Amino acid sequence: MARIVMKFGGTSMAGTERIRRVARIVQRQQAAGHEVAVVVSAMAGETDRLVNFCREANPLYDPAEYDVVVASGEQVTSGLLAMHLQALGCKARSWLGWQLPIHTDDAHSKARIEGIDSEAVLASMASGEIAVIPGFQGVSDKGRVTTLGRGGSDTSAVAVAAAVKADRCDIYTDVDGVYTTDPRIVAKARKLKNVTYEEMLELASVGSKVLQTRSVSLAMKEGVRVQVLSSFIDDDAPAADTIPGTMIVSDEELEGLDMERQLITGIAADKNEAKITLTRISDRPGAVAAIFGPLAAANINVDMIIQNIAKDKGETDVTFTVPLADLARAQALLEERKDTIGYYRMLANSKVAKISVVGVGMRSHAGVAATMFRALADRGINIQAITTSEIKVSVLIDEDETELAVRVLHTAYEMDAE
Amino acid sequence: MARIVMKFGGTSMAGTERIRRVARIVQRQQAAGHEVAVVVSAMAGETDRLVNFCREANPLYDPAEYDVVVASGEQVTSGLLAMHLQALGCKARSWLGWQLPIHTDDAHSKARIEGIDSEAVLASMASGEIAVIPGFQGVSDKGRVTTLGRGGSDTSAVAVAAAVKADRCDIYTDVDGVYTTDPRIVAKARKLKNVTYEEMLELASVGSKVLQTRSVSLAMKEGVRVQVLSSFIDDDAPAADTIPGTMIVSDEELEGLDMERQLITGIAADKNEAKITLTRISDRPGAVAAIFGPLAAANINVDMIIQNIAKDKGETDVTFTVPLADLARAQALLEERKDTIGYYRMLANSKVAKISVVGVGMRSHAGVAATMFRALADRGINIQAITTSEIKVSVLIDEDETELAVRVLHTAYEMDAE
Repeated sequence: MARIVMKFGGTSMAGTERIRRVARIVQRQQAAGHEVAVVVSAMAGETDRLVNFCREANPLYDPAEYDVVVASGEQVTSGLLAMHLQALGCKARSWLGWQLPIHTDDAHSKARIEGIDSEAVLASMASGEIAVIPGFQGVSDKGRVTTLGRGGSDTSAVAVAAAVKADRCDIYTDVDGVYTTDPRIVAKARKLKNVTYEEMLELASVGSKVLQTRSVSLAMKEGVRVQVLSSFIDDDAPAADTIPGTMIVSDEELEGLDMERQLITGIAADKNEAKITLTRISDRPGAVAAIFGPLAAANINVDMIIQNIAKDKGETDVTFTVPLADLARAQALLEERKDTIGYYRMLANSKVAKISVVGVGMRSHAGVAATMFRALADRGINIQAITTSEIKVSVLIDEDETELAVRVLHTAYEMDAE
Repeated sequence: MARIVMKFGGTSMAGTERIRRVARIVQRQQAAGHEVAVVVSAMAGETDRLVNFCREANPLYDPAEYDVVVASGEQVTSGLLAMHLQALGCKARSWLGWQLPIHTDDAHSKARIEGIDSEAVLASMASGEIAVIPGFQGVSDKGRVTTLGRGGSDTSAVAVAAAVKADRCDIYTDVDGVYTTDPRIVAKARKLKNVTYEEMLELASVGSKVLQTRSVSLAMKEGVRVQVLSSFIDDDAPAADTIPGTMIVSDEELEGLDMERQLITGIAADKNEAKITLTRISDRPGAVAAIFGPLAAANINVDMIIQNIAKDKGETDVTFTVPLADLARAQALLEERKDTIGYYRMLANSKVAKISVVGVGMRSHAGVAATMFRALADRGINIQAITTSEIKVSVLIDEDETELAVRVLHTAYEMDAE
């Protein structure tokens, strides 16, 4: 017997027939002898509908009231799933965020979970009752409803799994696992059996939107084993145990599981970056701080930074990337500070893509970056910027070459499925 | 300065534009110097949508989970109204049922309010913050969400008004007050300035669906002054104080307000009754108990009862009315017990209407019933059954004669507007 937390997203909960299907998947886990808690999202489209009402009410809406409104979507699906489970003969009940409770800080609309009281729900689960828990919501120490920010249900599921010391947290999504790269780009992409937390973080943060990044960080911190699998499996399929998706595990566990692991785990492409170049900045102490200080203060996340070699006259160009969504704001901010910073021209380019190769294997192997640069050069793809971390190499290229670059690298690292 | 509870129904809360209109009405009350709490229903249609999901999930749904699902409708509108009020520059916050809390018993889907903690909300109101409270919902002593049954928001409003010792509870509806009778039947119907709790109860229970009966009983018990008025007043109209609807008050207050009160306050018609006659029942002790005991046990509410004078051979006919919705169930139940009861034939008629004249004035005046019978007889309307209470006379007639009877009586009691 194991204790399992299952999480279903909005697509899986969109309407009576789909919730019934989810109930059958949950029932099978219980029938296999497990203690089960289920974390659910709102029906697909419902959160958008509610957010729209909030925006119409007041463009500068009070996030505390926003949370009251949008948390209702998950409340509805949790009650409905409990009913569907009961209709199948299971014992089940819903536990709202304030009922468990799921304690959060009071940063409304983007709250962080501080702790979950698990005693009552554990007793209920031990008695054979399935706990159905709305994702995305919690309660502040002032007793007000909070939400965790969009996509927060993944984080709820991992936090619940940590609180009840679950053996596994199964995240059911509309894909059936994590792939070496986007299968819509590379037909020969392979599903990974295992991936480490850190790899998943790197892949998630560069555009593989299978799991919310926060949920992966939390799982890593709390040591929760997370499995990504499809909720669109056949109705009569056996319990999830026997049709695994991708398991997200620690480095240590991975070593035991996968001796013959490849050098590179995955390749991700991210088109949500934009490049800004400031030319002819005077090459003096404090010049760079004058650029990045204000951006940080404005909560604009700078990713890649390149400072060209100083030219004559003590001048240099600085190039960096910001999220595409923040480009206009960043430009306005730098325009305002043109004199303070002391640059000649500002150039912006939103038609760029960041391509990253990720893998814990590269720690012990040299040559990963070299392979990447050579493969891209052979196809005439120009690299505009480079960053590296211990388990990742990223390059910035022209957006039009995104798909080509991913395919070239997938082949270069010998990842294509047979 | 007064302390006022305002209540808005689902039609008033249906969508952004209407909620904005409600916010302006509320703002005007506050601007007039009052402390204000607002109780809101779900958007029109929303509760039906949620109930449908519950029925689809499980026809024999768990009422505790049903409450989790359907209570969300009022949660949404309370948050949205708070935002709309804030957009107008008012201080406002929502207080969910479990936050006040509104304590109820745990009769899920038809819970009764046991008490409301008013301390926190009173402090908030005293600081100039408008309290927005979802109607229809509460919390049980087990900490689970409860609902009060359909239409329960009126009851929530009156209970909140009692808890905060409000000077007045204004119920905004899609009519602008209580009329002497249905204006769609009698064009000369007049809006009443005042009506007593007991009159309102009698009018409500016989078909004037302005207020939920429970809310009127509670108002009477707690001495809450309730005003019924229209939410579809002109946007630029002054605060509600100056455009009164109908005030529901105690007998004592009424005497002070309205010395020249008419004998009859209102005339109501109710087509939701059905008549059953059991013929040739043996006229022995216990025969009647054998009929009405099982009906009571099945929660079927018997209203009018006539026992004909015993004929020869010790036999009698018994006629009574039941709610139309319960007719089939009542017939099945009596058919089953045919031998125990010992009747000859069962006759049923669903094409009947109950016409009631109501007024506290009739306590001190004889002849009200006589006027009614004569006026109906003069127009050839046959009376099938009669019941009376201290402030009401009801007759059962053929359903086809409903409108005629109401018009005839409205004239007979000299109630027609000039």
